[in-house]
Amino acid sequence: MKSYRKELWFNIPSRRGFVNITSDIEKCLKESGIKEGLLLCNAMHITASVFINDDEAGLHKDFEKWLEKLAPEKPYSQYMHNGFEDNADAHLKRTIMGREVVVAVTDGKLDLGPWEQIFYGEFDGMRNKRVLLKIIGE
Amino acid sequence: MKSYRKELWFNIPSRRGFVNITSDIEKCLKESGIKEGLLLCNAMHITASVFINDDEAGLHKDFEKWLEKLAPEKPYSQYMHNGFEDNADAHLKRTIMGREVVVAVTDGKLDLGPWEQIFYGEFDGMRNKRVLLKIIGE
Amino acid sequence: MKSYRKELWFNIPSRRGFVNITSDIEKCLKESGIKEGLLLCNAMHITASVFINDDEAGLHKDFEKWLEKLAPEKPYSQYMHNGFEDNADAHLKRTIMGREVVVAVTDGKLDLGPWEQIFYGEFDGMRNKRVLLKIIGE
Repeated sequence: MKSYRKELWFNIPSRRGFVNITSDIEKCLKESGIKEGLLLCNAMHITASVFINDDEAGLHKDFEKWLEKLAPEKPYSQYMHNGFEDNADAHLKRTIMGREVVVAVTDGKLDLGPWEQIFYGEFDGMRNKRVLLKIIGE
Repeated sequence: MKSYRKELWFNIPSRRGFVNITSDIEKCLKESGIKEGLLLCNAMHITASVFINDDEAGLHKDFEKWLEKLAPEKPYSQYMHNGFEDNADAHLKRTIMGREVVVAVTDGKLDLGPWEQIFYGEFDGMRNKRVLLKIIGE
Repeated sequence: MKSYRKELWFNIPSRRGFVNITSDIEKCLKESGIKEGLLLCNAMHITASVFINDDEAGLHKDFEKWLEKLAPEKPYSQYMHNGFEDNADAHLKRTIMGREVVVAVTDGKLDLGPWEQIFYGEFDGMRNKRVLLKIIGE
């Protein structure tokens, strides 16, 4: 069994944003030399997500509006977590979007459906944050 | 290390629906010959889910009503994604229900709790769609 | 390839509650002797969760309030599942929080970010319930 580990770093210049990281992950998979196995990709921070969906700008605006409806950022005082912090909503939004994805590796490639793209989702940005990539297989 | 890959195909005759796929997955696991490992089962489409919950018809109706409350299908015009499409709500509903499950394989069997059943969740049906099964182990 | 399996048991003395299980999982990982691989930790019950977030009491109260807003416990009669049961809301809450986490194992340790802690989330407590831990690797 082979294993491969890599950290990807982000510093999103706004509080919230989505970044398509599919091609970064493809490069790492190639570097790993693993042909058959499972790939885990997870946010290492609890106010960020890794998720799979469509790379369509309208949908991303829908996600932003929808997450604000389900877990509004303001007023900050509505959340008990917001004593020294102001990011309680980011913890809730990331819960909706998910921490991680597990993707099959087949024949040395990400075994994704036709429209599946992997995103980093930031909900408390303007700081350095990491995504972990771990691949195991042969 | 052994690995096994299979696609399961669905064409749900309505926009939304849930299908219990536990026994299909059990057959694939048997076919794989893998006794100890991890099984990934994911929707390959971004308007569908694979999730684990109870096989109880009342609960499935509760899910339908609840998802419509959290991410209503109509009016279509409320979503920016719905220019050429009408399925933005399906992307949001699937986000709530999740893309994938990872299940332990122990002694050649799905290592599930007493009421855990695996479902395909369709949110934009009436077309051919796929689920990916990938098992790694020994 | 090595594999390791363990069940963790809980009996939460209230309907809902969160328990930090990170150190229990670390002990199991040490016991497994696995140095590189993937660790799956999932609720074996469909009204409970395993999730990763911050160990901060204010945030946990925010989660409780937020989940009650998104999927209220009462009135019980609002859910079709609640014929002989009263726990439909627990199925929905657990769907938001997730069934499972997959964590990388690197150098014999849980490969977590600085604030990542693993929790058992109970939404229908006062009974014995289980979490499954499965680790594969070398």
